[in-house]
Amino acid sequence: MSSSTSSMVKDLDDFALNQQTVRQWSLPRLAAGCAAAGVRHVGLWREPVRAYGLRATARLLRQYGLSVSSLCRGGFLTAPGAAARTAALDENRAAVDEAAALGAGVLVIVAGGLPSGCRDLAAARRRVTDALAELVPYARAHGVRLAVEPLHPMYASDRCVVSTLCQALDIAEQFTADAVGVVVDTYHLWWDDTVAAQLARAGQGGRVALFQLADWVTPLPDGVLVGRGQLGDGCVDLRWFRHRVAAAGYRGPAEVEIFNSRLWSRDGGEVLAEVLNRYRRYVLAPRGVDDGPPTPPKSYKG
Amino acid sequence: MSSSTSSMVKDLDDFALNQQTVRQWSLPRLAAGCAAAGVRHVGLWREPVRAYGLRATARLLRQYGLSVSSLCRGGFLTAPGAAARTAALDENRAAVDEAAALGAGVLVIVAGGLPSGCRDLAAARRRVTDALAELVPYARAHGVRLAVEPLHPMYASDRCVVSTLCQALDIAEQFTADAVGVVVDTYHLWWDDTVAAQLARAGQGGRVALFQLADWVTPLPDGVLVGRGQLGDGCVDLRWFRHRVAAAGYRGPAEVEIFNSRLWSRDGGEVLAEVLNRYRRYVLAPRGVDDGPPTPPKSYKG
Repeated sequence: MSSSTSSMVKDLDDFALNQQTVRQWSLPRLAAGCAAAGVRHVGLWREPVRAYGLRATARLLRQYGLSVSSLCRGGFLTAPGAAARTAALDENRAAVDEAAALGAGVLVIVAGGLPSGCRDLAAARRRVTDALAELVPYARAHGVRLAVEPLHPMYASDRCVVSTLCQALDIAEQFTADAVGVVVDTYHLWWDDTVAAQLARAGQGGRVALFQLADWVTPLPDGVLVGRGQLGDGCVDLRWFRHRVAAAGYRGPAEVEIFNSRLWSRDGGEVLAEVLNRYRRYVLAPRGVDDGPPTPPKSYKG
Repeated sequence: MSSSTSSMVKDLDDFALNQQTVRQWSLPRLAAGCAAAGVRHVGLWREPVRAYGLRATARLLRQYGLSVSSLCRGGFLTAPGAAARTAALDENRAAVDEAAALGAGVLVIVAGGLPSGCRDLAAARRRVTDALAELVPYARAHGVRLAVEPLHPMYASDRCVVSTLCQALDIAEQFTADAVGVVVDTYHLWWDDTVAAQLARAGQGGRVALFQLADWVTPLPDGVLVGRGQLGDGCVDLRWFRHRVAAAGYRGPAEVEIFNSRLWSRDGGEVLAEVLNRYRRYVLAPRGVDDGPPTPPKSYKG
């Protein structure tokens, strides 16, 4: 390995690849592809891990020297009925078990949307806190930190009633910081003019449990789930976020999680190489003249 | 007219139909259709008014006894260059002229998105305030109130950098309340847990210039522009908003503005009748047992 390659790989110490970014890759290909590219941390999802097998996944990670930056996801805690609530709590305990088995210190919690026919957001948000109160002792006993993720307000009805970093911190602060933190995802939070103040608040409390990155591009696709932007393609000041989460005391990796159907249709290795290139240019490198988007976004009004 | 019909029509004194809700209707059909249904206020858009003719539109409105609750829209004030800024200001003065000619006391201001290649939301927001400072004397001289509309955060990059009622009030409060107010649109604000406090703030300052209604339904369509929900089809507590804007001192009509391609494919008269039915049931009527959505939303997670 040349010294240049070595330094290029060393700058990936604080990088993590969420497996959704290269959904086209199986777990063995993900592990081999990351190791070959010098990536040392991966964010995993429960469904592919279960399909491949929990023990087999843990073995694969050891074989390639990979650590798990986060497991996605627990949550969906807004259902009002006792039976649905019990089922959700059971499911979350299983998620904690899986995180512990993978050595993932962080389990991402996506709150869940409004139950069918319900118009009471405040009540749904209260049920999330109440459910976390039951989960926290279990998660703590297994060495897993719960990370409440605010999702963009466009997901408030059907996916996540926690829409801002302020709301996520309001919930997390009901518990000790070692037990419950928050996820800072640039895609969900970039638009919010209170995010600087809330990141400072998160820093004072030591609450940033995970930092995730994707860019914001428009037009949004049908269903708004799989149109997240490759780093640098959109309008998010990713570098600013990196500095702010570092100032907030976050020492974990920057985990790139891009849901994008176009990326999924390409070769996984090519996508990973592009992600690393963009990560170096738009996240790691100092702000410079070469800082514009690589392709002009077509849908912005001048 | 029976006394029952008369009372049914009287409860429309505080109702306005934005013409985008029945985009399939020409202006003459809109005017005749509203008058036949007992609707007395309409919200108009500049493009169809200009296509029909400004004077012809004003004549049509007089003929049918209709008043204009709002004209949409001015704004798009975020461009940084001098030439683009001058052009935008000229365009907004023309919009003020048109509002005055129609007797519309309120011109809706949609701020505009991020300029191409720009990642500085704060700077774009400052340019909106700076441009309004130039427009306010002109609008005031013409008896037109500028109404800053916060749009849902999913439009922050390509349409409107003002995403919350708090931000809209921060801008409006740079000017006197008679000159600059805000738009409260349920579709854009329903998810925000600070909206109650911000509506109270708007009330103290007399800042609510316009109240618009649409419901929130998912899945969102490609481009997220034409999937707003018919009243009652979604998860917004419309009644709550009506009470809060009234408590905030708003005395204008509740203007229903639904961008929905399915509504546009139907007969306009049928759509208006449905809107009025839903308005009575989900906005005017006291909360009751018959308060659930008329059709169960399919995409909510239980």
